[in-house]
Amino acid sequence: MQIRWDQQYAQRTSRMSSSAIRELLKLTELPDVISFAGGLPAPEVFPVEKISAISQRLLQEAGPQALQYSATEGYRPLRELLAQAASQDGAPVTVDNVLITSGSQQGLDLLGKVLVDEGDTLLAESPTYMGALQAWAPYGASYVTLPSDDDGLVLDDLEAVLQKRPKFIYILPNFQNPSGRTLSLARRQYLIEATTRYGIPIVEDDAYARLRFEGDQLPSLISLVVQQSSDDTGYTGHVIHLGTFSKILSPGIRLGWIIAPAQLISKLVQAKQGTDLHTPTLTQMLAYEMVRAGHVEEHIPLIRNVYRTRRDAMLAALSEHFPADVTWTHPQGGMFLWATLPEEMDSSKILEEAVQEKVAFVPGVAFHPCGGGENTMRLNFSNASPEKIHEGITRLGQVLSRQKSAAR
Amino acid sequence: MQIRWDQQYAQRTSRMSSSAIRELLKLTELPDVISFAGGLPAPEVFPVEKISAISQRLLQEAGPQALQYSATEGYRPLRELLAQAASQDGAPVTVDNVLITSGSQQGLDLLGKVLVDEGDTLLAESPTYMGALQAWAPYGASYVTLPSDDDGLVLDDLEAVLQKRPKFIYILPNFQNPSGRTLSLARRQYLIEATTRYGIPIVEDDAYARLRFEGDQLPSLISLVVQQSSDDTGYTGHVIHLGTFSKILSPGIRLGWIIAPAQLISKLVQAKQGTDLHTPTLTQMLAYEMVRAGHVEEHIPLIRNVYRTRRDAMLAALSEHFPADVTWTHPQGGMFLWATLPEEMDSSKILEEAVQEKVAFVPGVAFHPCGGGENTMRLNFSNASPEKIHEGITRLGQVLSRQKSAAR
Repeated sequence: MQIRWDQQYAQRTSRMSSSAIRELLKLTELPDVISFAGGLPAPEVFPVEKISAISQRLLQEAGPQALQYSATEGYRPLRELLAQAASQDGAPVTVDNVLITSGSQQGLDLLGKVLVDEGDTLLAESPTYMGALQAWAPYGASYVTLPSDDDGLVLDDLEAVLQKRPKFIYILPNFQNPSGRTLSLARRQYLIEATTRYGIPIVEDDAYARLRFEGDQLPSLISLVVQQSSDDTGYTGHVIHLGTFSKILSPGIRLGWIIAPAQLISKLVQAKQGTDLHTPTLTQMLAYEMVRAGHVEEHIPLIRNVYRTRRDAMLAALSEHFPADVTWTHPQGGMFLWATLPEEMDSSKILEEAVQEKVAFVPGVAFHPCGGGENTMRLNFSNASPEKIHEGITRLGQVLSRQKSAAR
Repeated sequence: MQIRWDQQYAQRTSRMSSSAIRELLKLTELPDVISFAGGLPAPEVFPVEKISAISQRLLQEAGPQALQYSATEGYRPLRELLAQAASQDGAPVTVDNVLITSGSQQGLDLLGKVLVDEGDTLLAESPTYMGALQAWAPYGASYVTLPSDDDGLVLDDLEAVLQKRPKFIYILPNFQNPSGRTLSLARRQYLIEATTRYGIPIVEDDAYARLRFEGDQLPSLISLVVQQSSDDTGYTGHVIHLGTFSKILSPGIRLGWIIAPAQLISKLVQAKQGTDLHTPTLTQMLAYEMVRAGHVEEHIPLIRNVYRTRRDAMLAALSEHFPADVTWTHPQGGMFLWATLPEEMDSSKILEEAVQEKVAFVPGVAFHPCGGGENTMRLNFSNASPEKIHEGITRLGQVLSRQKSAAR
């Protein structure tokens, strides 16, 4: 009897869609396409030589340990180091507050597994990170959203939403993916004050914090929490903080972390044990040795310089080649900017034509959990060279101009 | 308002228990305890030098690629190589049938996410691998079990159970964890015949196949499937096969794979994308280069020799030091054997005393999804040296003898 697999799938899989956009984006991986669609770091700035030297020494000195099973919680020296770094940034945490994850994406999945029941409502920015929507879809999350402007999430309606008690708030405070926007200090303070009052947790996804090109660094949300009590296991606040090595070292090693109250960490550890036992020992020890040797800190200014140059190249090309009624954000860091077309334009249709011209981006609809954003697009500036950025934006500007005159 | 995290947890977390056994087993990680409790490979046989040389060359020649994001499906050359190996073993599959996972444990988690609805019944061996129970608990699996004997799963009642249409059958055919037993050829053939007739999928968890010390290798279940149709995407049978590099290369790199019909693989890829985006590029390329250079094949006989010696040491020590009314399996490979005490004895209580004597094992109850097995224990023989095995079994034999006389 032949098995019809689609009749075997669990109900939750009906919420895991293979979007038309994802199919279209496969075309953008062809080698001659200039793609602003991905979220790839510039591979030419990976510290390959240093990673090679460190991994060589690591395998010589501790090979058997690096290749053996290890604790679900993560490599303890790395957890200690991350706890120290968070404490120096103003969030007094201990090793018991830190769980190493297989990339920040796994942090999102584990939070969904442990916190999200079918029908739970989450409060998100609109637009927000598509990967979080994918992580939480199988667990049955639904969304209420607030819009954002140049100061990040707009909080005018926050209290009204908090009164409906969403399970948690999901926010990317720095150089947000996809918009490139940063939450202002005043809004951070108000957000913490109001959520403390209502007892609503915040998931702070802070992948891009270290990629600031200009302006002052703002305190993380977790550092603004005033702890009402504390114990031997450190932090007891309501902000869950997600960090990652993807943007400051390498995304291909898939290494992130969660900082949260120890009680929640214990439950996340149980969930992780059933999910993948532990994150690779080798990559954890490698990241630890890279940080300890100072190689990560000395590497960050290089990344910032390269990305600043590319952002500037994209901003200049946009001014030169995009129609006058298109607007875009001016991110002070990160990897993305966000363009808004005239209301009547549909960026998904533009992508179809853009791919013919061998240039790509992600249509904004993909980042809107409750719909909308048909006239928006995410543009990545970290991966292509300034020359390619100029060429790609030129092509894209031509497509936009053509579609505008066709619509007239 | 202080958040009570335990009131925030999703309902599924009530099925993720932190067992008393796990707490007890933490004590066994103290350095002076001889532990037969874990499932650790012998670290002294990891091919550290070769991994070091290969990773050095890999980073020199393809560093930026090895450190960059990559496809959710996995590193294509590695998938092709695994498809070839499976085809040579009699299962004609293509690259579209292979998904790389973050260890076999992630294969179990993804299968749960995609196939298991709350209340679904799975057919498992009793005893069976505890990690699978942990992976599927959050998705709400319940179990019906069949017992096993020296020829593996006992199939007398198979048809009666298949008529109730379990979602799938979970089986470890070779040197099963925890029992060390192997499913006989006749039973493999009957199992495939009956499940084909009823259209019930099999999940074949084949972590230990390559660790055979003696006797003839038996065909995998996936190789026994007679495909009723085939297409460009290769395999269309009802057996889902899980493989891993944990036992033949390194468990600390967390690298496994799933072989399944392409339609199911597509859905698993969607689930994996939300779970961790992809398995680390670096470790995948490393494993690929290790296999391609022949280092994995030339390494396996060394592992077999070391484990055979340790199994023999444990069998000899058991004969010498265990009471006469205790029986145990004689595995022809793998990492575990399984001891059965007289019915009135409780191995959990024995563990409490054993830990005082600085020797440890896992009580058999942990491996029984529907209860039972209080008088059984899993003993790992791959991790400790023959001398430690002799010393540990001697101590354990003394504890058993003492408890027997106390009970009299």
